[in-house]
Amino acid sequence: MAHVSLPEGLPGITGLLEYRLDTAEPIRELTQILLRGPSSLSQGERELIATIVSHRNQCRFCATAHTAAADLLLGEHDTSTAVKSDVGTAPVSDKMKALLTIAAKVQESGRLVTEKDVSNAREWGADDREIHDTVLIAALFSFYNRYVDGLATWTPDDPAFYERLAERIVNRGYLRPAGGYVNLKTKPPEN
Amino acid sequence: MAHVSLPEGLPGITGLLEYRLDTAEPIRELTQILLRGPSSLSQGERELIATIVSHRNQCRFCATAHTAAADLLLGEHDTSTAVKSDVGTAPVSDKMKALLTIAAKVQESGRLVTEKDVSNAREWGADDREIHDTVLIAALFSFYNRYVDGLATWTPDDPAFYERLAERIVNRGYLRPAGGYVNLKTKPPEN
Repeated sequence: MAHVSLPEGLPGITGLLEYRLDTAEPIRELTQILLRGPSSLSQGERELIATIVSHRNQCRFCATAHTAAADLLLGEHDTSTAVKSDVGTAPVSDKMKALLTIAAKVQESGRLVTEKDVSNAREWGADDREIHDTVLIAALFSFYNRYVDGLATWTPDDPAFYERLAERIVNRGYLRPAGGYVNLKTKPPEN
Repeated sequence: MAHVSLPEGLPGITGLLEYRLDTAEPIRELTQILLRGPSSLSQGERELIATIVSHRNQCRFCATAHTAAADLLLGEHDTSTAVKSDVGTAPVSDKMKALLTIAAKVQESGRLVTEKDVSNAREWGADDREIHDTVLIAALFSFYNRYVDGLATWTPDDPAFYERLAERIVNRGYLRPAGGYVNLKTKPPEN
């Protein structure tokens, strides 16, 4: 049971974002801009950053949800699995390896990111904006993971829930659905 | 030197918030609502939550800035110093001790917050909203600390800088100053 009384049937972050709508709005907006807005990183690459941070924070809700989103965007499951297991051998570009290495350090502490990590990313073609956005996404999911787990929100076990959630955040994005939430526990999103 | 090229003369978060204005806007809004909006926790109490998290993340910029803001709001320096050193003996209410204990756990991992931590806070009078907001503020500063340090932003040594910054965030809040930033390195804020 969650530590505070949340709207029924809404697991993980979905209940929290309905609990306090005024704080939810800028949280949703920031996520939409950062993960779905124009970027030289693909949406799949950005979801991989969210995935590695959530996985390393052992936030099961966020890690499962963003793995499902990355998988849907990439069209396969192998890359997200490999990224969570070992960035060094994952089937991603060398630039993404360097950026995911930075993200993994930010997950632990921003202070761990070195000049060498950053110059390595630049050597593989990363620019200022990509380095900035990688750190910002990693910081944002360090936030989400703590918000979700710090209030002991409900984490569904059914993989089908996360597939429906992934369809929603891939096809509709992170802003609040018109007319309020859709209860994904019982009802698939209308497309 | 910061890991990416930031506007000159703007240390810590202030340069990052000018570097990418579209993501800065919801970050500023969330902070303004959460730390300055209506709440049964005083602004000083909320700044103490920001302070303990930033201190434990060893984010010198954020810890110094929010210590200065808490001190200005509380009218003294002793409480913030004591909170950073030992919550158990700090001169705050028992409810605040319980909430700061939760915040300190969230700083490490949301998964560390126990039923007992939460029931203890309730016994001292905390309600759902206060527990929720404590976790959300602690998560938000876990975000800020990683953003600020993950990009190696400049941390001024001069205490006068943080006093000017505290005056600004206490008297004007967290939204972007009209007409853009004020360079606090060289220029005090107009009141």
